[in-house]
Amino acid sequence: MNLGESGQIYFKNGYILTMNAVNQVYACGSLLVEGDKILAVGEVDERQLCRDAEVIDLHGKYLLPGFVNTHVHTSQQISRGVGDDVDFITWLHKRMWPFESSMTEEDSYVSTLMCCLEQIRAGVTSFAEPGGQFVNGMARAVTEAGLRAKLAKSVMDCGEGLPEIWQRTTEEELEQQIDDLNKYHNTADGRVQVWFGLRTIFNNTDELIVKTKELADKYGVGVHMHVAEAKSEIEYTQAVYGEPTVTHLHKLGVLDKNLLAVHTVWLTNEEIDLFKKYDVKVSHNPASAMRVLGFAKIPQMLKKKVCVSIGTDGASSSNRMDMVDEMWLTSLIHKGWRLDSTVVPSEDILCMATKNGARALLDEEVYGSLEPGKKADLIVIDPHGPSMMPVNDRIAALVTAMHSSNIESTMCNGKWLMKERKILTLDEEAILKEAQERSEAIYKRAGIVLPDRFPVIY
Amino acid sequence: MNLGESGQIYFKNGYILTMNAVNQVYACGSLLVEGDKILAVGEVDERQLCRDAEVIDLHGKYLLPGFVNTHVHTSQQISRGVGDDVDFITWLHKRMWPFESSMTEEDSYVSTLMCCLEQIRAGVTSFAEPGGQFVNGMARAVTEAGLRAKLAKSVMDCGEGLPEIWQRTTEEELEQQIDDLNKYHNTADGRVQVWFGLRTIFNNTDELIVKTKELADKYGVGVHMHVAEAKSEIEYTQAVYGEPTVTHLHKLGVLDKNLLAVHTVWLTNEEIDLFKKYDVKVSHNPASAMRVLGFAKIPQMLKKKVCVSIGTDGASSSNRMDMVDEMWLTSLIHKGWRLDSTVVPSEDILCMATKNGARALLDEEVYGSLEPGKKADLIVIDPHGPSMMPVNDRIAALVTAMHSSNIESTMCNGKWLMKERKILTLDEEAILKEAQERSEAIYKRAGIVLPDRFPVIY
Repeated sequence: MNLGESGQIYFKNGYILTMNAVNQVYACGSLLVEGDKILAVGEVDERQLCRDAEVIDLHGKYLLPGFVNTHVHTSQQISRGVGDDVDFITWLHKRMWPFESSMTEEDSYVSTLMCCLEQIRAGVTSFAEPGGQFVNGMARAVTEAGLRAKLAKSVMDCGEGLPEIWQRTTEEELEQQIDDLNKYHNTADGRVQVWFGLRTIFNNTDELIVKTKELADKYGVGVHMHVAEAKSEIEYTQAVYGEPTVTHLHKLGVLDKNLLAVHTVWLTNEEIDLFKKYDVKVSHNPASAMRVLGFAKIPQMLKKKVCVSIGTDGASSSNRMDMVDEMWLTSLIHKGWRLDSTVVPSEDILCMATKNGARALLDEEVYGSLEPGKKADLIVIDPHGPSMMPVNDRIAALVTAMHSSNIESTMCNGKWLMKERKILTLDEEAILKEAQERSEAIYKRAGIVLPDRFPVIY
Repeated sequence: MNLGESGQIYFKNGYILTMNAVNQVYACGSLLVEGDKILAVGEVDERQLCRDAEVIDLHGKYLLPGFVNTHVHTSQQISRGVGDDVDFITWLHKRMWPFESSMTEEDSYVSTLMCCLEQIRAGVTSFAEPGGQFVNGMARAVTEAGLRAKLAKSVMDCGEGLPEIWQRTTEEELEQQIDDLNKYHNTADGRVQVWFGLRTIFNNTDELIVKTKELADKYGVGVHMHVAEAKSEIEYTQAVYGEPTVTHLHKLGVLDKNLLAVHTVWLTNEEIDLFKKYDVKVSHNPASAMRVLGFAKIPQMLKKKVCVSIGTDGASSSNRMDMVDEMWLTSLIHKGWRLDSTVVPSEDILCMATKNGARALLDEEVYGSLEPGKKADLIVIDPHGPSMMPVNDRIAALVTAMHSSNIESTMCNGKWLMKERKILTLDEEAILKEAQERSEAIYKRAGIVLPDRFPVIY
């Protein structure tokens, strides 16, 4: 299995979904990787192959671009279960804030490693992190895991009831981010990039929002922000600014193609038009939305050709950090909400999870489709088994029947991260052990005690 | 691994969720099976052990009653993908009816085998089948698979546009069912039972409904019926009977403890009260409901202590026949619908998927909890891995983070159906192959051509 010097990997006899401009599929195609890039797709001229190429006969398995998870709190991974079934204020004030503010850089590092394991197993090759406290810890983990990521700090310069450790000035928050950017942006062969973060309009002053946008433009990166997520947010912005969140962001002049707006549940139709006009990117997080936020108007956004991508949110908000499950949910909840079984069809969802994700992360030229010249970020899917077979409608099956356990192998930047369900870049067992221990230790430090749901004899 | 003559299997060091009357949990408990029954639970006196007992050290893994899937169309398993993203009328008239009416008994047998594979892998030990055409084929498959099932025929004695093959009289439908009952009820050591079926009020005359109830009482079995599933159904019953479905069923005198009412999306509050009064059982199918039906009032039903169980519906309606995913969905959609993150908590969902399911199938004395004297229907759950760990809130984790791939072993009636992810009762590979072939052949016979969603080069 050792590769030769050519760095070539040749896939043949695959059902190849390119997700290119016309979504071309090759029912029995081949694909050639060389180094970190895709060299040829479809019908590869085998004369291009070096003698030492690794040859993989897919025997009809599917090849797809890696999934792009446009919103995942990697630092919350080890908080999983911290606030299931409680109300939002309990979740935030009694669980999440105590947990997050009790974390160390090393905790954040291990949490991100743990999250990377789940991402790789679910076929993700690139993600956007909206911000823990420790970009350094996260960057270290992503570097080791072999994934791509846009990392941001969780940035707050105002807001009531914040833990003291998080009470920072606008300037401090901006300086910290510039520092992170100088240190980590475009490291790990370009896989690790640093973006600017804005936590929510509750916790961000207008000054911070405007300056963040200026800096993002200056550095040529994106801004990752929770936008119009809860009904209470809109009530707040109406009360404070006399207008809903997106209208206010528009007035501040920050709606632009480098804004990644997450959740976007509470938008007016006019605000959806603004998103289209300024090419604002949307990250739809269905599981998290179902937990407490509500139903984003995804069918309308797709109709208006807003760039909608998919994210998992954090393990404290939606538990399963699984893009395959999020695709399934995306295919279900809007149909149920609208009582229309034709909205948000599977082919749109595959676009959302791959190339729309790449666009949302300002990387549409880099990955998100299987095309010559693009980075070799791809996954092998094995539909074999009773949970996906019989397969009759292949595209739909990927969305409506597939589980992440069907993801057989994951490659990022031409390198195997997982092959035949074995993680190759990380020591999975050691991370699992340490993550469980650190998680329990943080619960203790933070004084979080979860009530027993059933009577337990210990 | 061969068992000795005693037929004893002894589990120790497990996190045991008994799901008994008080939902007692043993953090480090043991459980003893002898033959088809549970002999002791909690702290087993090891002096009860025979020398030849199979001893299984769970090392902290979880032991739970097997899941009860109270609504699964096993005969639709090999139609999977037949109607994704199309409107309801297309789904029914152009896809499902042509498919189902082109099936043979042997197709139904293989489809049920295929469905049993997915059920066993998802931890199901008992299910209710609302009716294909061939109870004989289904009974044969369930017998071989080692599961428990309540099988019914899909019964229709009226309705517009039905395929000719299905146009039958009230008497023919009743006689056929009595015949099935005489042949298959209480076969396979009692694992296979036959119930009466009623497809929907669209396709069932009042006479059939009333006579079915009388016969079910006479034979001491249940009636499995789709009830108040779609908005169009209520519009129909209002137009024809001047009242909604459940009110009409009440007038017919058939609301009773042996009625299993499936979907029950469109109920008035008064009709929910009727369900409670008559102890009608509900099968909630969240994925299928999301596809086209809408949101059942599950929070209200739970509050009024209606017996709510969970079902997957058929592979043509919801694709994933996976009780673990249905539990997750149940935990999500009602929160999103009600904008209340506290409704339908995880502990209620575990009850719905286990003991409520057993009650719904009139088997609450037989299985659904781990208690001495009950049948040994149980599953071993291994939480180890990055998709479920870290585990802090165990009960919630089973609902919000677990995947069916965490189900390590499934036992029904004291017999291993799956052990360490290997199916022991069926030849999985042979069934997969045959199911795919038969599925494709039926599509051809039925003249169903699915449009390509993306351009394909063959």
